[in-house]
Amino acid sequence: MVNTIGRKFSITSFGSSHGKAIGAVVDGCPANLPLSEEDIQIELNKRRPGTSSVTTPRNESDQVQILSGIFEGKTDGTPIAGVVFNKDQHSKDYSMFKDTPRPGHGDYAWMEKYGNYDYNGGGRGSGRVTIGHVIGGAIAKKLLKTRNIDIVAHVTEIGNIKSKEHDFDTIKENVEKNVVRCGDLKAASEMEELILSKKAEGESVGGVVEVIAKGIPAGLGEPVFGKLDGEIANILMSIGAVKGVEIGRGFEVSNLVGSQNNDEYYIENKKVFTKTNNSGGIIGGMSNGMPIVARIAVKPTPSISKKQDSVNICEMENEKISIKGRHDPCICPRVTVVAESSLAIVLADHMLQSGFIHPSNLDKQ
Amino acid sequence: MVNTIGRKFSITSFGSSHGKAIGAVVDGCPANLPLSEEDIQIELNKRRPGTSSVTTPRNESDQVQILSGIFEGKTDGTPIAGVVFNKDQHSKDYSMFKDTPRPGHGDYAWMEKYGNYDYNGGGRGSGRVTIGHVIGGAIAKKLLKTRNIDIVAHVTEIGNIKSKEHDFDTIKENVEKNVVRCGDLKAASEMEELILSKKAEGESVGGVVEVIAKGIPAGLGEPVFGKLDGEIANILMSIGAVKGVEIGRGFEVSNLVGSQNNDEYYIENKKVFTKTNNSGGIIGGMSNGMPIVARIAVKPTPSISKKQDSVNICEMENEKISIKGRHDPCICPRVTVVAESSLAIVLADHMLQSGFIHPSNLDKQ
Amino acid sequence: MVNTIGRKFSITSFGSSHGKAIGAVVDGCPANLPLSEEDIQIELNKRRPGTSSVTTPRNESDQVQILSGIFEGKTDGTPIAGVVFNKDQHSKDYSMFKDTPRPGHGDYAWMEKYGNYDYNGGGRGSGRVTIGHVIGGAIAKKLLKTRNIDIVAHVTEIGNIKSKEHDFDTIKENVEKNVVRCGDLKAASEMEELILSKKAEGESVGGVVEVIAKGIPAGLGEPVFGKLDGEIANILMSIGAVKGVEIGRGFEVSNLVGSQNNDEYYIENKKVFTKTNNSGGIIGGMSNGMPIVARIAVKPTPSISKKQDSVNICEMENEKISIKGRHDPCICPRVTVVAESSLAIVLADHMLQSGFIHPSNLDKQ
Amino acid sequence: MVNTIGRKFSITSFGSSHGKAIGAVVDGCPANLPLSEEDIQIELNKRRPGTSSVTTPRNESDQVQILSGIFEGKTDGTPIAGVVFNKDQHSKDYSMFKDTPRPGHGDYAWMEKYGNYDYNGGGRGSGRVTIGHVIGGAIAKKLLKTRNIDIVAHVTEIGNIKSKEHDFDTIKENVEKNVVRCGDLKAASEMEELILSKKAEGESVGGVVEVIAKGIPAGLGEPVFGKLDGEIANILMSIGAVKGVEIGRGFEVSNLVGSQNNDEYYIENKKVFTKTNNSGGIIGGMSNGMPIVARIAVKPTPSISKKQDSVNICEMENEKISIKGRHDPCICPRVTVVAESSLAIVLADHMLQSGFIHPSNLDKQ
Repeated sequence: MVNTIGRKFSITSFGSSHGKAIGAVVDGCPANLPLSEEDIQIELNKRRPGTSSVTTPRNESDQVQILSGIFEGKTDGTPIAGVVFNKDQHSKDYSMFKDTPRPGHGDYAWMEKYGNYDYNGGGRGSGRVTIGHVIGGAIAKKLLKTRNIDIVAHVTEIGNIKSKEHDFDTIKENVEKNVVRCGDLKAASEMEELILSKKAEGESVGGVVEVIAKGIPAGLGEPVFGKLDGEIANILMSIGAVKGVEIGRGFEVSNLVGSQNNDEYYIENKKVFTKTNNSGGIIGGMSNGMPIVARIAVKPTPSISKKQDSVNICEMENEKISIKGRHDPCICPRVTVVAESSLAIVLADHMLQSGFIHPSNLDKQ
Repeated sequence: MVNTIGRKFSITSFGSSHGKAIGAVVDGCPANLPLSEEDIQIELNKRRPGTSSVTTPRNESDQVQILSGIFEGKTDGTPIAGVVFNKDQHSKDYSMFKDTPRPGHGDYAWMEKYGNYDYNGGGRGSGRVTIGHVIGGAIAKKLLKTRNIDIVAHVTEIGNIKSKEHDFDTIKENVEKNVVRCGDLKAASEMEELILSKKAEGESVGGVVEVIAKGIPAGLGEPVFGKLDGEIANILMSIGAVKGVEIGRGFEVSNLVGSQNNDEYYIENKKVFTKTNNSGGIIGGMSNGMPIVARIAVKPTPSISKKQDSVNICEMENEKISIKGRHDPCICPRVTVVAESSLAIVLADHMLQSGFIHPSNLDKQ
Repeated sequence: MVNTIGRKFSITSFGSSHGKAIGAVVDGCPANLPLSEEDIQIELNKRRPGTSSVTTPRNESDQVQILSGIFEGKTDGTPIAGVVFNKDQHSKDYSMFKDTPRPGHGDYAWMEKYGNYDYNGGGRGSGRVTIGHVIGGAIAKKLLKTRNIDIVAHVTEIGNIKSKEHDFDTIKENVEKNVVRCGDLKAASEMEELILSKKAEGESVGGVVEVIAKGIPAGLGEPVFGKLDGEIANILMSIGAVKGVEIGRGFEVSNLVGSQNNDEYYIENKKVFTKTNNSGGIIGGMSNGMPIVARIAVKPTPSISKKQDSVNICEMENEKISIKGRHDPCICPRVTVVAESSLAIVLADHMLQSGFIHPSNLDKQ
Repeated sequence: MVNTIGRKFSITSFGSSHGKAIGAVVDGCPANLPLSEEDIQIELNKRRPGTSSVTTPRNESDQVQILSGIFEGKTDGTPIAGVVFNKDQHSKDYSMFKDTPRPGHGDYAWMEKYGNYDYNGGGRGSGRVTIGHVIGGAIAKKLLKTRNIDIVAHVTEIGNIKSKEHDFDTIKENVEKNVVRCGDLKAASEMEELILSKKAEGESVGGVVEVIAKGIPAGLGEPVFGKLDGEIANILMSIGAVKGVEIGRGFEVSNLVGSQNNDEYYIENKKVFTKTNNSGGIIGGMSNGMPIVARIAVKPTPSISKKQDSVNICEMENEKISIKGRHDPCICPRVTVVAESSLAIVLADHMLQSGFIHPSNLDKQ
């Protein structure tokens, strides 16, 4: 069951860009949660292509249908199948890449693993599979909201431009105000400019996306092989273009001494807090009640129009390819909602595992 | 089963520094692999404390016993239980920290999750649980060696000092020549100096550990929720002090354009290679046949003798603590073997999942 | 993930009789298996109601659609989602049973577990969920056929009438010739008569279904907690109306002595066989190469028109109910295909786990 | 992880009769449960050989040691490793059976699966592996007792002699009063006589064991692939000599009509009961609050001194064998505690999954 993730709250992903549909089955959502197709659609719209200058001009409506698990407007405790029918799955011709892997894509590994069925994994290797993540994430978010857990993701770096905004509410507000989904409006406009200039050169550009969750109780995560940070790292690293995951200060800790990095405790209003949040809300594999902060490194979109060296694996000879068509010059803005969804899925799973959310207490807070 | 990791080749970890023993049950190792306690002991000795100036002076012999799964010097296909009896589990008194979480440790989250049974999780939260990882890793490595897969981890950064060595064989040779387990001998001596100077200040220091595996066939990893990079990120992030995981170029990709980051293909001797290895050997969640390269950010040891702010969670008042005793001024050298073991466990699991290793073909290469 | 079963070949079931659709996602089917909707439809038609005098007269067409996992007429190695849209999910009114559990149904346990969302679990507790099993089973059967494994289930007992037929091929032929799906034509007509007489009384009747698989290689099954007989017992006992599972001689072994029950070995044409098959092809939790024979006890359909004692769980008072409508007087004939599907799913999973079927050898026999 | 069973409360089994030790790691037991080695030893003594005329005269002390998971006399929430060192693992010579499978044992399947490493699987295929089940079961029972759930197993049939006792408390008392562990003292002495007469003939005899659990809340079990009856069937069928599993009326339902088999409801003291318990406490895959009743068919011990036909699988020729040594003439008495343990493990797992037992409420009832 390598297309399923989660213990109590789990997602089984299916579908590809070449088939009839893409979707997910969400297992473990308690009964009695109000849920509509609109709840999911709002999230799907954030990853939908064709909505701005910095995403691919391809236009797909990506309308979700819920096939099961809902009764009279509420979840009924049984699996929720959500599905998006592909509008025109035959519109793109990948046959030219049948024997010639595109640099930066999973094509070659896919060919070695599965053979050439579904050319180049174009179908299942496609970013469209994250529709399944977002369906699961939308339900997870709704469930977490019953416990006042809120999540936001934003683009913090594109090339060498960095966001300076760290306030959760400001970020949440600002991401809706710019096409880059950056929490810092000044940085956002510089980022947009950079992306468009790279697009004009037939290039793409990478970046960093940060995802923050607040309202987390202490004690989520199961040492030693169900740790919260381990499972967050797994699901985030499994997003197509991601090459790195950090929690809290992340790689900066390598250049700190103990007294700089340790988060000291204090008490306020009979509650325990840490003065700093270098740990990013997770320590010893468990949440400590502070906001969870994770960052992911997103590589530049591999599909570029520049000519590149590749090989024909049947003829076993070198070959040059150029990838025509419309591509995202920077995938970061669309990755934000996938990152939010992924974190939400892991958190919902652990809220259920730890009993903070339980079928019998769903309506009590 | 939150103390078990892996599908076909799995590790169930048990034990704490307070109990009688620490160990692991390894399930899924095929029959007919030659295996002795010595094979495991060699690896355990690499993480054993008390062996150099840069580790804690505590001395523990950590002798492993194999309780099951071996018949006449070879594995017999049934679970292998390996156990290290704690020499003197009552030697340390943690009762002073019973209500006062140590900054940078998992104590507070542990208290919130489990209550105070086993003060501060000192037992299970201890770095000693990685003995289980190393037992599993030693067996995994031996299994991988039947397919000529070799793994090495080395310290690449301590503070602002960086290793410049990238050659697998040189690294493998050099790590045995210096106490820091750095692959670059010049950097190693600077690192040692830095660690000792921080130790003298009652401080600790963080760093980066890189782990490399070569000889990997293309096609390991199961999209979309059994991806090789996701599972590597999970197990590496689950090592106690780790706050970040990178594959290949990692966070550098955020500042690259597509043509810089894509690894172009070429053919040599009828085999496919990439000119660069920015992907770190994994693309689309699957291995591509190039060496797998991962790096982890290791935080400075949280136990420092400097006075720190904490709280008494019973009295609910602020309190200062100072952590006496002998601690590792830098955990990186001892983390190297845990990182090697962790990567080996994931790779052995996928070699079995993909059928590259199978009970019926163990003796054939 | 309590709606998922299987390790390498797994089924995630979703949907209820009240929602839009019912279906399953099949994960782990190797690429390159020819598969069409027709392959699945043939199996679904065997469990479809309204097809004979001994099943409910309700008529549902149960047309399957494959949403994913197929490319150019063959599986592509990614999850296969199969779905049957419910024709008219609002046609039945269960609201009268909202607070009054029907004897013999899961209603009361369902109410206690989930509350009253989806009245009486009528949706998910319905026998219609086995559509998901049959979708998965149809694919499993097709996969097993590539290794010449064939499966048949037949009704061996209804009330006190017993089938006397034991020959695989005769059974396979005969089940298609009578509405009871009994392998013995003489017994079949007596069974039909008995069912119709009970139906006339407003009653229902139980029976026994036997399922046989031939062509199984020795060595399937993973001791000690992945045993073949344990997993077959699990999936068969999980079919709604089943109250007992036997392998081989089953409960008869309690009245045998060792020399009667042991299957002695002999050699013919350089192959090992047993003289008898009391073990039903499974011993020590593993297949031994002989046909696998399992039998299940199927209870009489609980929906009967006779007046029965129940309770109103809101008012907490006794209440009488009578269940009107059209029901199967005997569920055994329709259970046969579910039993075949269930066994096929477990066998396909173990054929993949053991490497007898592997993505790389699918087209080789 | 085919040697692990359970979701929240799981058992990982290891060891064989040929190795140093046999044991289990229990994961998921909440912190704060009082637990001693004595608690486990009491249960192990029930399956210990050499204790009566109807078991093998081999004498093994089977002393358990707890290696982890206990702190100051209570569980600490981390994995509990229990181990029994084999007193003299080299005492028995199985080499004569190296190439010659014993009829009725798993030897042949084991040879085909694993090759001859560990001759005939004598080690892992041995009934001694159920020591792991009993270690897990002892902890599960203690956990269930905090919720007033009590379990007893007794022998109900040997040959054609049947127990007539159905009262839980009487059974519980009587099983300690006779060597057969039958709940009906009159039947017990007849059973003992029968076993001894078969023993005198160099034969063995089969029987039926019933296991009953009372105090179960309604709502345990997770439709559709985590059903309580399915998981009970799995673990019971996985006990070495078991060939059939029944819940409630079991195979008798095949000869009942609906109105006979349906359990009608009534209210007493504001609680819901059923007049009969034909369902054996499980319906729709969930507990309904009535006692859970399961029965297993136990085959006659395959090791008999009578000469039997076998084959030499290396020479590929027919061969006769006779199994000397001391064997159980009837395994049923010793299976009772394994059946209790197995049921306890599944129930503890579901009590945790459903939240009836939760780390935070362990001390509250």
